[in-house]
Amino acid sequence: MPKRIDFQTEPARYKHWRVDYDGPVAWLTMDVDEDGGLFEGYQLKLNSYDLGVDIELNDVVQRMRFEHPEVSVVVMQSGKDRVFCAGANIQMLGGAAYSHKVNFCKFTNETRNAFEAAEAESGQKYIAAVKGACAGGGYELALACNYILLTDDSASSVALPEVPLLAVLPGTGGLTRVTDKRRVRRDLADVFCSTEEGVRGKRAQDWGLVDEVVPNSKFDDVVKTRAQEFASAAGARPERGIALTPLQREIGEDAVTYSTVEVTLDHQARMATVLVKGPESDAPADMAAFEAEGADAWMLRCAREFEDAILHLRLNAPELGVLIFTTQGDPERVLAHEALLLDNADHWLAREVISYWKRVLKRVDVTSRSLVTLVEHGSCFAGVLAELLWAADRSYMMEDDFEGDNRPLAQVHFSPANFGPLPMGNDLTRLETRFLGQPHALEAACEAMGEGLDAEGADDLGLVTMILDDIDWEDEIRIFLEERAAFSPDALTGMEANLRFAGPETMETRIFGRLTAWQNWIFNRPNAVGPEGALQRYGSGVRAEYDRERV
Amino acid sequence: MPKRIDFQTEPARYKHWRVDYDGPVAWLTMDVDEDGGLFEGYQLKLNSYDLGVDIELNDVVQRMRFEHPEVSVVVMQSGKDRVFCAGANIQMLGGAAYSHKVNFCKFTNETRNAFEAAEAESGQKYIAAVKGACAGGGYELALACNYILLTDDSASSVALPEVPLLAVLPGTGGLTRVTDKRRVRRDLADVFCSTEEGVRGKRAQDWGLVDEVVPNSKFDDVVKTRAQEFASAAGARPERGIALTPLQREIGEDAVTYSTVEVTLDHQARMATVLVKGPESDAPADMAAFEAEGADAWMLRCAREFEDAILHLRLNAPELGVLIFTTQGDPERVLAHEALLLDNADHWLAREVISYWKRVLKRVDVTSRSLVTLVEHGSCFAGVLAELLWAADRSYMMEDDFEGDNRPLAQVHFSPANFGPLPMGNDLTRLETRFLGQPHALEAACEAMGEGLDAEGADDLGLVTMILDDIDWEDEIRIFLEERAAFSPDALTGMEANLRFAGPETMETRIFGRLTAWQNWIFNRPNAVGPEGALQRYGSGVRAEYDRERV
Repeated sequence: MPKRIDFQTEPARYKHWRVDYDGPVAWLTMDVDEDGGLFEGYQLKLNSYDLGVDIELNDVVQRMRFEHPEVSVVVMQSGKDRVFCAGANIQMLGGAAYSHKVNFCKFTNETRNAFEAAEAESGQKYIAAVKGACAGGGYELALACNYILLTDDSASSVALPEVPLLAVLPGTGGLTRVTDKRRVRRDLADVFCSTEEGVRGKRAQDWGLVDEVVPNSKFDDVVKTRAQEFASAAGARPERGIALTPLQREIGEDAVTYSTVEVTLDHQARMATVLVKGPESDAPADMAAFEAEGADAWMLRCAREFEDAILHLRLNAPELGVLIFTTQGDPERVLAHEALLLDNADHWLAREVISYWKRVLKRVDVTSRSLVTLVEHGSCFAGVLAELLWAADRSYMMEDDFEGDNRPLAQVHFSPANFGPLPMGNDLTRLETRFLGQPHALEAACEAMGEGLDAEGADDLGLVTMILDDIDWEDEIRIFLEERAAFSPDALTGMEANLRFAGPETMETRIFGRLTAWQNWIFNRPNAVGPEGALQRYGSGVRAEYDRERV
Repeated sequence: MPKRIDFQTEPARYKHWRVDYDGPVAWLTMDVDEDGGLFEGYQLKLNSYDLGVDIELNDVVQRMRFEHPEVSVVVMQSGKDRVFCAGANIQMLGGAAYSHKVNFCKFTNETRNAFEAAEAESGQKYIAAVKGACAGGGYELALACNYILLTDDSASSVALPEVPLLAVLPGTGGLTRVTDKRRVRRDLADVFCSTEEGVRGKRAQDWGLVDEVVPNSKFDDVVKTRAQEFASAAGARPERGIALTPLQREIGEDAVTYSTVEVTLDHQARMATVLVKGPESDAPADMAAFEAEGADAWMLRCAREFEDAILHLRLNAPELGVLIFTTQGDPERVLAHEALLLDNADHWLAREVISYWKRVLKRVDVTSRSLVTLVEHGSCFAGVLAELLWAADRSYMMEDDFEGDNRPLAQVHFSPANFGPLPMGNDLTRLETRFLGQPHALEAACEAMGEGLDAEGADDLGLVTMILDDIDWEDEIRIFLEERAAFSPDALTGMEANLRFAGPETMETRIFGRLTAWQNWIFNRPNAVGPEGALQRYGSGVRAEYDRERV
């Protein structure tokens, strides 16, 4: 059985990162432990990384927002001499199962996006202080920062050598960020991406690959100055954060149990049910009370547990093709917990928790499994939880009384959370995406805010795929699940990736759409992964051999 | 040696299509000859198609615009009983080489886009009159039409059964057009795309899959009425067109020679040079003279020959990884020929020829080869031909005198053609894409209109990747070409597809980007193409077997 990957960690357990806090500036040092790889069989030399390194980085970014809201500038630097970061570890990639490679890229992409979200949502700016070689995924880390300083010496350069060296793409947003974020001219980008040794000095700045090139002798001073300047420009920050205490979690073969989330794994039927339980107590009276509850507050606790469940299923249960979302609880209470945050959107912690839900729901959107939401009696699809109706590929809702079921009849409840603060990667809300080009349908939904919509009402507004009564419910769901289990997982992945993101595209959807799809394609091609391909041959001294046909 | 695929045809040679002209309405009947497949080994049953069928269709659409400008409505219908079109032929797909599948999809996508372009650019509206089964690529044909009528009987339905039946995607824009063009709700689209038998009658209309459902008994009458209504709404049309006479062309092993284009194939070095020759005589005096020249007019002849050369290289020379674009001729004369059309943009034929160049240049943009443009002395990169500088992945320009070269020094000439009428698939001009987020650079280019820019001037404006003098030219180009030839063709395809289309996305770029990339991925996966995969097992009575892991 493969090793279980755990997405929970904490600073005391970090092997690869160090954070030094200095008022509004945090110094984030990458100093990867060569022998600290997540799996056997490779060494993480030259600050190269594997999923374990990125799990720690994700934890850093997350804690920075909740535990260190006083920080407005995070300076990313290397703890090694002569190398900033060499990117994803090639031996790891060469040896990894295909599905691990894909999910590794997805998670690292999400972490890079979280850098940018930190500034956009909370004014925490990541800047990269690049000394030494900064190649591949290393430069993609820098690209995810919103300011890049490069020292001007012969050993320091930025590079995306994947195509010439490894016959794969810079798969963590590199190509997209070069053209769409940094606006590097496409022919210069072509030169850059096919130059193994990269670009350094003034040329790197002229082409837009970095923001500033600084003589080596002045580099540390200039980095400090810039960090202070950005911090001064950032204005007042909250003084102290809350602790993200360890999750309550029990992991078994067929179940993962949290305080607000229960995951049931059905390996036989190749599906998992993710039950989210509404709050059992009333909402905190005010934000002071919420802050006092801290990580125990339902809105935050539930987001953390739900996110962990999704990540667990992605990486540790790739054979489960269908995720079923259900909820149980009091919808009014969900709305009350949520309302405290929406009503205090100016409060730093309220903003953080809502932004966090946004990121968690985006993880759902890009999860390559068939997603179905079942709106059962007794459920609490209200506000933020109602988003699961539209994040799913389909949703089914119980209609009228079910024999022997005394739970309150299924309802859907809108809140302002559904109309703005939780956009998808395409920058539209899930309802806007659902009703693309149908403004009337969107207005009608908006007008229904405040009501609890029963099955018929939800169906009339187009909020669910199908409503089913006691007679049909079980059969219809069973047939759907069996059907889904019978289809090709690959075809479903492709179909879902296309149907989920109608409408406008953003840098983010381009990364998960165009770039990821091409990378996945290349990860299947013998030129990259075959026995004579570049990933296998890398470091062997023998050149890769390529099938020359262009397709 | 594989059979050479010829993209030239004419109505007298059609095997699969019939067009009946009735004033402003053309009746386009699909009646595929079962035994008329392009290759051996399959029968084109039930109006299924292969590339040969689509080459004829492309010819129909093209001639409709040039030879039949009086037509404002094209009604697509089936010549078979009980079936509209069964889509791409599965036996053909199952047996085809991977690169043929990919290029087949690309060409059919371009033809579908040409339906939509015909209405957008010339007011020729395609409507689909669907009687009988309309499945897969058949429904994608209908989706490319701008109005779909479906007869209401038990045998008639629309369907995208690719995922459940074949484990591949509807690869000719189906998924994208369902959500983005027809605005079908994504969960209903999910149901639709996983329902083998499709959707018929009122439900098809309710979901937005068709525009109108008509009782069988009234179908033919309603179709005629709609056609007349659309034709009446279209207003006045030109009375007669010009003949697209056969191309002058000689095809050899190492060269393809046209009157204005010379292709040299270097199989050893895996590259081809496409030389476009500027006009040898003066521009026609006015549009009457242009019309009299017809298909011999340089602007039209060159577009046709250049397009044929690109298609020939795509399908018949997949092992040539680099296309080198060069020109020779008098740039002022190119501008004069072009100016006649730009100055008479209201004239139907001027509009047709410019729109045609737009489509031809888009074919270049999505050609999966490394594209390089060499601006040599004596060249005529002016106006429409200058677009090749920015369609290419890189461009190199000669600087100053070259020993023994008496040709006029290389220059680049802008014209209004570079600032609007020839947008890429992302709806930006190539210069806008090149200078994304740099409005000053775009303005500076615009201000240079009318001047002939020498190497230094072109370099200052960022119009070429590199300028090289006599000393460096040969070596630099040689090194670049050798380097490109050494890289993995797959990695280059992925890299180029990402770098070429910065900025906004449109339905078209989504089809060629996201959708195509996922389809190419699936075309590599054993679940679709392996010995136990769905494409191989289709029709065998044995179910496909799938690897269940989701990636």
